[in-house]
Amino acid sequence: MATLTFSILGMSCGHCVAAVRRALESVPGITIHDVQIGSATVETIGPAPVDSIKAALSEEGYEADVVR
Amino acid sequence: MATLTFSILGMSCGHCVAAVRRALESVPGITIHDVQIGSATVETIGPAPVDSIKAALSEEGYEADVVR
Repeated sequence: MATLTFSILGMSCGHCVAAVRRALESVPGITIHDVQIGSATVETIGPAPVDSIKAALSEEGYEADVVR
Repeated sequence: MATLTFSILGMSCGHCVAAVRRALESVPGITIHDVQIGSATVETIGPAPVDSIKAALSEEGYEADVVR
């Protein structure tokens, strides 16, 4: 199990936190550990679905990158 | 018919615009003219329901005041 933290641009309020959480919930193979304004941390079991996570967040209007 | 513009604190993104619009839609006696980040303009027919508007926005977490 690996922990992945994303830096996320464009989040500004609690609605954004909820939108990011919903987007992450749509990605298979991860468990959400934490979502805050500007970042999210997930746990992965298999290969980290980084591109799927970035695509799901991009669809909601947020630009994300892995920070660790 | 009167036009009322509110200054609204706490709005930061498109989700907030949507939340404010939904809150205003719940107030009887007004028609929404415009909602932007930081302000909203409504048209009223009868007596202006200023307190109802402020209460509806407050429930969503936004502090509003009439500016004109």
